[in-house]
Amino acid sequence: MQAPSSPTLFSQVQISLGERSYPILIGDSVLGEPSSYSDLPRAAQALIVTNTTVKPLYADALQSALRHHFRQIHVLTLPDGEAYKNWEQLNLIFDALLQNTSDRKTVLFALGGGVIGDMTGFAAACYMRGVPFVQVPTTLLAQVDSSVGGKTAINHPMGKNMIGAFYQPLRVVCDLATLKTLPGREMAAGLAEVIKYGPIYDMEFFDWIEAHVDALLEHDAAALAHAVQRSCQIKAEVVGQDERESGLRAILNFGHTFGHAIEAGLGYGQWLHGEAVGCGMVMAATLSQRLGLVDGAFVARLRQLLKRAGLPVVGPVLSQSDNAARYMELMRVDKKAEAGEIRFVVLQKPGKAVVQPAPDAMVAEVIDACCQP
Amino acid sequence: MQAPSSPTLFSQVQISLGERSYPILIGDSVLGEPSSYSDLPRAAQALIVTNTTVKPLYADALQSALRHHFRQIHVLTLPDGEAYKNWEQLNLIFDALLQNTSDRKTVLFALGGGVIGDMTGFAAACYMRGVPFVQVPTTLLAQVDSSVGGKTAINHPMGKNMIGAFYQPLRVVCDLATLKTLPGREMAAGLAEVIKYGPIYDMEFFDWIEAHVDALLEHDAAALAHAVQRSCQIKAEVVGQDERESGLRAILNFGHTFGHAIEAGLGYGQWLHGEAVGCGMVMAATLSQRLGLVDGAFVARLRQLLKRAGLPVVGPVLSQSDNAARYMELMRVDKKAEAGEIRFVVLQKPGKAVVQPAPDAMVAEVIDACCQP
Repeated sequence: MQAPSSPTLFSQVQISLGERSYPILIGDSVLGEPSSYSDLPRAAQALIVTNTTVKPLYADALQSALRHHFRQIHVLTLPDGEAYKNWEQLNLIFDALLQNTSDRKTVLFALGGGVIGDMTGFAAACYMRGVPFVQVPTTLLAQVDSSVGGKTAINHPMGKNMIGAFYQPLRVVCDLATLKTLPGREMAAGLAEVIKYGPIYDMEFFDWIEAHVDALLEHDAAALAHAVQRSCQIKAEVVGQDERESGLRAILNFGHTFGHAIEAGLGYGQWLHGEAVGCGMVMAATLSQRLGLVDGAFVARLRQLLKRAGLPVVGPVLSQSDNAARYMELMRVDKKAEAGEIRFVVLQKPGKAVVQPAPDAMVAEVIDACCQP
Repeated sequence: MQAPSSPTLFSQVQISLGERSYPILIGDSVLGEPSSYSDLPRAAQALIVTNTTVKPLYADALQSALRHHFRQIHVLTLPDGEAYKNWEQLNLIFDALLQNTSDRKTVLFALGGGVIGDMTGFAAACYMRGVPFVQVPTTLLAQVDSSVGGKTAINHPMGKNMIGAFYQPLRVVCDLATLKTLPGREMAAGLAEVIKYGPIYDMEFFDWIEAHVDALLEHDAAALAHAVQRSCQIKAEVVGQDERESGLRAILNFGHTFGHAIEAGLGYGQWLHGEAVGCGMVMAATLSQRLGLVDGAFVARLRQLLKRAGLPVVGPVLSQSDNAARYMELMRVDKKAEAGEIRFVVLQKPGKAVVQPAPDAMVAEVIDACCQP
């Protein structure tokens, strides 16, 4: 255990969704601070859902912080990894809730990365048709992306995040101190989603990331605080305009259509989600270039930044016989597809993304070009 | 196959929930009528979910009626019965959707009773985080209760309807002609939910049911049309005021707390849901009497009507050693419970229900009194 530093709240970003609005608290050592939770509704029970990696690091601190707020606090520990984001693990959450005779006011806490957040949020959406929950993301990816905006889901063997709900948390508590224990590979995966906000929405932020990527990889506190805050602000602006992804929100999936194919094709958990998205962004940017929307210099610049962040930029071969066809097959179950036509998030220009279809032959060329070193 | 009669639309009841508002069409032979669906959104695909009993009777008619509206119409047939309202069957719906590469605009049709409606609705709520669906209830119970109001769920081995969502259909199409093929036991089970609306909301309707219960059991068309319409009107009024059951809506669960204990204690599917609710209403009315809210004459009157409808009015013994304790244990996982305290829907007076706790000893006495002939 590290000596606890005194908690510092750096900033608060508000997600504005009418009666479903909520704050994102961003700070240092705020996870174990009772005041981070003191205005939550009181209830007889809380259930902390976490994984085998995160539990020994932070479950005690969270439990202590909640001690005066809930009469009983249970902890459920699931295995770690995307391969476990499935119905069997989700059911363990329901089993625990029912074994504890948890009522409808029970508050769930998702303590961990994106997998824990997505599964706990979906469990909260479904248990007794909806109980409150709080996101306590402990990975960079979860802090800048998956814990914010209310997308919850589990994977189906035939497609990622295919079974889920839009269901907003009561709040998100981003403790930057947890990033100190994050392995380098997870840090890079999180940076993929940070970098994403540049090409789709804010090229000034992209410039800033280029200038600070080394500081971020070295866990510089001020740099991390800015990266998390700006990412959450952009996500809040987009989600506030389109909660249920009927339009604008889809731009947040830049790189994800190709990325999901990589994750599903290799088997969930082989590549981290952020790694697949990073590589997927190279593919989506290359597609944007073929469509005549951005130039090759920008694609090279994006590829270079992803590489510096420690991310793979060459796509894996998913099939020896017909690799492009295998990618296409996997992409056709994408949630943005309509009537069998895949719809891609492409860059209209650096800093602005749009959703549109693309000719199959062009997409196949992009896959071929991006899957060889 | 019967010779098709010409379709007649008797009435339309509106559920008013802002942008989630929708109509309930009530009529004779409206299920196979294209105009019942003609203003639904167009989509490439529809999936009809039905069961082995209903499919040979009505799936062809529904499929024909939809033929010009959807390019592809798939049919998925599940086993029949409450014992199958579980995750395994729900997953078959997801499997079918993914195998068909169904997109987010795909419309699901729930063709069957309450089990099919609850499961199909929940699948629609979760597939790609929400696709549209239509209820086509073919049992009296589903027409007067479960298809209306957006409650969807599956059972968990430890509790009925524990995993689910509030998710409204695009419309409900109640075809009274389907009730002609309904077995007597299912008819009686549906009448339990019709009778329920009397004591909780409308004693004039209760008087009417007393006068027409024989006509209803004989499938008198005019009587059925009135029973379905008035039931849907009352449900629409209650749900329109409290969609997510934060207050008033709980009165619709009159008899259900005891009833769920009966269903879970005997094993799902032993007693039909409506049978358990009928018997549960006798228990809840008896509890209301012990609480000094209604008199014994009213309890006798309710018991008598349920009996005439063909429903069981004596509770089953769930445990030879301590029957009341077993009921209590099963009731503590009820969704209305708070901090381990069971909350009962009781009658403040005939025609008005309220939710309140009751002393354990009194509830145990009621169970003892109601479980012996």
